[in-house]
Amino acid sequence: MDLIDIYLSEDLGQEGDITSDSIFGDERGKAIIIAKEDCLLAGLEEAEEVFRRVGARLVKRKKDGEEVKKGEVVAEVEGRVKDILKGERLALNFLCRMSGIASETRKLVEKCKRINPRIEIAATRKTTPGFRKYEKKAVVIGGGVPHRFGLFDAVLIKDNHLKVVGSVEEAVRRVREKIKDKIIEVEVENEKDAIKAAEIGVDWIMLDNIPAEEGRRIASKLRKINPNVKIEASGGINEENITDYAEFADRISLGYITHSIKSKDFSLEIV
Amino acid sequence: MDLIDIYLSEDLGQEGDITSDSIFGDERGKAIIIAKEDCLLAGLEEAEEVFRRVGARLVKRKKDGEEVKKGEVVAEVEGRVKDILKGERLALNFLCRMSGIASETRKLVEKCKRINPRIEIAATRKTTPGFRKYEKKAVVIGGGVPHRFGLFDAVLIKDNHLKVVGSVEEAVRRVREKIKDKIIEVEVENEKDAIKAAEIGVDWIMLDNIPAEEGRRIASKLRKINPNVKIEASGGINEENITDYAEFADRISLGYITHSIKSKDFSLEIV
Amino acid sequence: MDLIDIYLSEDLGQEGDITSDSIFGDERGKAIIIAKEDCLLAGLEEAEEVFRRVGARLVKRKKDGEEVKKGEVVAEVEGRVKDILKGERLALNFLCRMSGIASETRKLVEKCKRINPRIEIAATRKTTPGFRKYEKKAVVIGGGVPHRFGLFDAVLIKDNHLKVVGSVEEAVRRVREKIKDKIIEVEVENEKDAIKAAEIGVDWIMLDNIPAEEGRRIASKLRKINPNVKIEASGGINEENITDYAEFADRISLGYITHSIKSKDFSLEIV
Amino acid sequence: MDLIDIYLSEDLGQEGDITSDSIFGDERGKAIIIAKEDCLLAGLEEAEEVFRRVGARLVKRKKDGEEVKKGEVVAEVEGRVKDILKGERLALNFLCRMSGIASETRKLVEKCKRINPRIEIAATRKTTPGFRKYEKKAVVIGGGVPHRFGLFDAVLIKDNHLKVVGSVEEAVRRVREKIKDKIIEVEVENEKDAIKAAEIGVDWIMLDNIPAEEGRRIASKLRKINPNVKIEASGGINEENITDYAEFADRISLGYITHSIKSKDFSLEIV
Amino acid sequence: MDLIDIYLSEDLGQEGDITSDSIFGDERGKAIIIAKEDCLLAGLEEAEEVFRRVGARLVKRKKDGEEVKKGEVVAEVEGRVKDILKGERLALNFLCRMSGIASETRKLVEKCKRINPRIEIAATRKTTPGFRKYEKKAVVIGGGVPHRFGLFDAVLIKDNHLKVVGSVEEAVRRVREKIKDKIIEVEVENEKDAIKAAEIGVDWIMLDNIPAEEGRRIASKLRKINPNVKIEASGGINEENITDYAEFADRISLGYITHSIKSKDFSLEIV
Amino acid sequence: MDLIDIYLSEDLGQEGDITSDSIFGDERGKAIIIAKEDCLLAGLEEAEEVFRRVGARLVKRKKDGEEVKKGEVVAEVEGRVKDILKGERLALNFLCRMSGIASETRKLVEKCKRINPRIEIAATRKTTPGFRKYEKKAVVIGGGVPHRFGLFDAVLIKDNHLKVVGSVEEAVRRVREKIKDKIIEVEVENEKDAIKAAEIGVDWIMLDNIPAEEGRRIASKLRKINPNVKIEASGGINEENITDYAEFADRISLGYITHSIKSKDFSLEIV
Repeated sequence: MDLIDIYLSEDLGQEGDITSDSIFGDERGKAIIIAKEDCLLAGLEEAEEVFRRVGARLVKRKKDGEEVKKGEVVAEVEGRVKDILKGERLALNFLCRMSGIASETRKLVEKCKRINPRIEIAATRKTTPGFRKYEKKAVVIGGGVPHRFGLFDAVLIKDNHLKVVGSVEEAVRRVREKIKDKIIEVEVENEKDAIKAAEIGVDWIMLDNIPAEEGRRIASKLRKINPNVKIEASGGINEENITDYAEFADRISLGYITHSIKSKDFSLEIV
Repeated sequence: MDLIDIYLSEDLGQEGDITSDSIFGDERGKAIIIAKEDCLLAGLEEAEEVFRRVGARLVKRKKDGEEVKKGEVVAEVEGRVKDILKGERLALNFLCRMSGIASETRKLVEKCKRINPRIEIAATRKTTPGFRKYEKKAVVIGGGVPHRFGLFDAVLIKDNHLKVVGSVEEAVRRVREKIKDKIIEVEVENEKDAIKAAEIGVDWIMLDNIPAEEGRRIASKLRKINPNVKIEASGGINEENITDYAEFADRISLGYITHSIKSKDFSLEIV
Repeated sequence: MDLIDIYLSEDLGQEGDITSDSIFGDERGKAIIIAKEDCLLAGLEEAEEVFRRVGARLVKRKKDGEEVKKGEVVAEVEGRVKDILKGERLALNFLCRMSGIASETRKLVEKCKRINPRIEIAATRKTTPGFRKYEKKAVVIGGGVPHRFGLFDAVLIKDNHLKVVGSVEEAVRRVREKIKDKIIEVEVENEKDAIKAAEIGVDWIMLDNIPAEEGRRIASKLRKINPNVKIEASGGINEENITDYAEFADRISLGYITHSIKSKDFSLEIV
Repeated sequence: MDLIDIYLSEDLGQEGDITSDSIFGDERGKAIIIAKEDCLLAGLEEAEEVFRRVGARLVKRKKDGEEVKKGEVVAEVEGRVKDILKGERLALNFLCRMSGIASETRKLVEKCKRINPRIEIAATRKTTPGFRKYEKKAVVIGGGVPHRFGLFDAVLIKDNHLKVVGSVEEAVRRVREKIKDKIIEVEVENEKDAIKAAEIGVDWIMLDNIPAEEGRRIASKLRKINPNVKIEASGGINEENITDYAEFADRISLGYITHSIKSKDFSLEIV
Repeated sequence: MDLIDIYLSEDLGQEGDITSDSIFGDERGKAIIIAKEDCLLAGLEEAEEVFRRVGARLVKRKKDGEEVKKGEVVAEVEGRVKDILKGERLALNFLCRMSGIASETRKLVEKCKRINPRIEIAATRKTTPGFRKYEKKAVVIGGGVPHRFGLFDAVLIKDNHLKVVGSVEEAVRRVREKIKDKIIEVEVENEKDAIKAAEIGVDWIMLDNIPAEEGRRIASKLRKINPNVKIEASGGINEENITDYAEFADRISLGYITHSIKSKDFSLEIV
Repeated sequence: MDLIDIYLSEDLGQEGDITSDSIFGDERGKAIIIAKEDCLLAGLEEAEEVFRRVGARLVKRKKDGEEVKKGEVVAEVEGRVKDILKGERLALNFLCRMSGIASETRKLVEKCKRINPRIEIAATRKTTPGFRKYEKKAVVIGGGVPHRFGLFDAVLIKDNHLKVVGSVEEAVRRVREKIKDKIIEVEVENEKDAIKAAEIGVDWIMLDNIPAEEGRRIASKLRKINPNVKIEASGGINEENITDYAEFADRISLGYITHSIKSKDFSLEIV
């Protein structure tokens, strides 16, 4: 049971598709999957796998990462009609959500790269439980970066760590004693902590919930202290104000591209 | 491994929280969870369970289904600091997404009930793979109804079924031959099919992608044919036009309350 | 690990078939599966899948749902001898139990349909833990109906619900408030409750443990109250008295067809 | 997910008990479990575990292995009414099937022990897929022996092995070369093979489908050849003729006690 | 998820091979697996399966159980470069550890068989958690015997059982009352218990931590008491003194061949 | 089913401990766990968890990370005798293997730190499939560092990557394009590649299979090129020559501490 099996069983239970099973025998059919909105396509590889598992076959007409127009056929599906319908909803749910995330990410990436071609747009861990793998993947398809996958694969010292430990220096010292082969990032909420973090040479400093104007000023100070330090902006950033941050940050991370996105619409039609 | 275990392992991997584990020993702490926006609270029971599993303890100050204001404390969490931080993100992801769905649902429900107190607002199967159980639950907390959980627990004859079979009558006949103890709902895209469905006495007719004006007219015809028939409106319905549908439908189903919702913001602060 | 994997590992553990593995190398062989009794065949699709998973191949000579005679070959199996023997017992256990259930169901269905061609013979939830899916399927192959799969996919208000709530009306009222898209069935043990249930218009009334004579009389009253109501008879029904119930009921449900059935005998012989 | 979790999820799906959940809040209740037939009790430990997992508590009034009379209370259950009803069916399914098996086994054991106090009544691998563990346990509660659990924990050379290998000697030789620490049993269908098996000193000889009269004669020959050999009778044995076999065999194995048994009836009543 | 899936996910997590995935597209390649030391090959079948699961294909040039020389190519692997590298480490870990165990076992087996051609070298349950299946298999490839797989498939009465029960006789009596179809082995630490065990006719006696000299003397006594008894030597046996035990024992079991072995070195090279 | 459940079921199967279950009822007992060799203790937390799961209770007398002497009691265990014996072997297998790894690591760490107090001794991915988590943990207890857990949590460009891509520069360029928040390490086998890697500023350079003398010389050159570069030595390093590498490297990684270690001996005795 990998994730896709779990998702399938969520829709099928043990009884399967009772509607289709009572209507159809083994008649075969063909269907097309159509984009109902312009978007950046994502989730087609997953849709292909979904149909494979229910015994049907998806043939791609477009590829993940391509721009598609409203009305375009992105794939064809062949198999028994009841198998096609068994996989339909899960395949579409992959496409709709992942294309929604990829499209929004792409929009932000393009907007920001015009201002700062080296800027990175990053996902966070604010993802839907059980679907993070695919939400992060959609961000990458949209031109963003995944950021750490979970608590286990990267170090990020956050406000709550600092609050308990009492100082940036001490928190970093403890981490460095144990972890030697990871980049260390510290999230700070004020200039004082940011400067301390730069002075002790952490790799990344995340300016959290600091307005763009102030962020720019702090960033410039930090780079004077340590020219190698990387600056991430996070918190309170949205589509409107994002370019203000893009001017001075190396990376902008936003939860909303995984948690508050509008899905793109796709439909499957038997032909 | 139930769903919550799967969600936890998504964030923790086998290595756990490498940041907190290198910073903290067994020191204990207390945290509060704060609503950062007004919303209808949902996901607190799940948050409680998350903390239980990582060895901490959440004490509720609010309940799922209550309205909370920006800045209000919804719960306290006690335990080892590193256990609290281990559960933090998953607990918040539950709260943010479920409260977002519940709040949006509530808004629609209230809006529509002013016009038609018996109207139902229903979720669809357009949910995030692996998280349907909780998205449907959030809709219910918001005053909506869950609709069928998957393909296995209710009959819904859709456009693709009709296209292959050729007629509403034949599709319904086949279902009725096999399934005697389920309500039968047929999704139709035009008046002709709607009338046929009413004539052969199906329980629910879903008017899919039919404008409100036309929907009202058809609904009235259908009820003349079969006074017991229930009408569901679906497709192309949004926050603006929903009340037009509420006037004549028994149920309105909308994918966007589960797939295109803005999450509500919550944060956890060690105190 | 789906159910069939779990069943296989029950027989094979981690060490596999120690007898065959110490006797055989990779020599290939052919086997036939023979019905040792007349029966209605069921479980052959599952047997096919079992052999596929152990690396052998079953070729059907009969189909599920066909009547087979003692001595008839229902399938051939090809592959390495040790793979055939690895799948033998599980494949036969599927065939024996499912054919036993299908055969007994068929017998009852035929008996009852002579009296009432629209009667349904239904399974219950009195199934062997972990094997319900296949026991319900065997009932369907025998011409019966599956009834609800579990507690999650249909509403059935039973004696214990009524006892706590106090009245049929109140129990139904509470269900109707929450559940709008399911048929509601109420199990009653006396005429009074049956009449109440009919008056408030529930879809199905199950007369539980009510003798046929009395059942017939009550059913006739109920249909006068609500001509659309469906009557299910249950409890104390066996092969002898079943036709008495078939005369007046729409459906007869019996636990014994899944829990107290004689298996049919099949054997596998290397040829 | 151990077996009991799998069984529970079979009944509850992801939606749970939709009837009880719409009728009840957190009201607590008490129930009794009553034997509806005289039987040898089995499955009560499993019932206890089932209720524990759904959050209720079963208190035993009888013990597995005790004889109970129709009408006797075997246990009490306390908890939230909806939790009690959530576990009810699975708990009863354990009790009904396991008590059915235990009771039938006990009857055979007593019948045979009157004739031969050292006789063993054994289960086979002809069990319901996914439920073998509990069917074997019920046989043991009834005074029987479990026989090998699967293909992995004991050696049994069967007809199909002999057919491919060509002779008892060669099959046993191959096994002995590989397996030194298991008892070796050979299933034979004729006197010649039985004698060969005895001559080469196998531990157990299973006389398969050999009538009692002939079995007795062969057994006596075999014991002259090897006084330590143990004789198992199997095939074509039923409640009527079993005592004929009990006179000369050391063990009688019967598939029907696990695959063709009548369940015993139990019910749960809220009080 | 069988064991090999679990092992793979240990190395790949949900993010996969981030290095190879950022370096390679779909370019295909070929690799060879080379033995870096002389050894007895084991684990190649597992390596083949590993590559199959990641979408590559291993073609064997040697077979498990063959002696290979330093520098010899044991297999070729074809597929996408990134798939080959995805399976590399797990495949090698199988080969290195299993070949290490098989080689050491072979050495002991040959050494001992020169002195006593019927001696068996056996594994114990002192294996790496989660990898027992493959460690036992490697012992068998090396010419050893697996001994019992776990607590469930054979009877071994050990010192702690005797300590609680008080006497060999009583412990054996209790086991015999319950278990009739398994060989019974008793582990003893002194002559007195050994003699008792022989007198009551147990099948195997394990002389635990008894020096070779004394073991030989006791073994000879035991065989006088019961010529059929089998003697196993265990405890304090190593490569140096093993032949002293081989002279008189039927079986020698050693934990170190599974828990303290030097792995053999293999490497995979893209060509 | 987490890893410890999987390990337990490896030893217990579905039948459990057939020896203890036939000997013991519910009698309670106490046992001690004794170190049979001097060692650095590791695995005691896991042993505690094992006993908890089988229903017994381990009370620690020593802690993971403490030096213990031959004969010392490291823990006491209380519970039903049969539960203690059920967990015995798995608990000991944890202790023996983890203490073996921790002890060997500690020895190397101390040896090397005398020469270079900042040296790190690191584990590799050459671990036993399914047990990596605990082998890495044992290395950490011994004073070592875990290195990357799998392919998913750190970047390591190896010989096979370089061979296909053609140059260090190109491989690093591709990685840097995709991955911005991880330390980049490159494994090189010659001076030329090492120098290139230093020139383009990778974080870590692993000198693989380069003799100490040459390694020292190269390391010094690399540090001149990039004073921040970290040097890891790997390949062909053993207990004898390790100090030669400790003089110039920042980290030494060795496969043998996880794959070729002698376990430490522990035993459990009922008292």
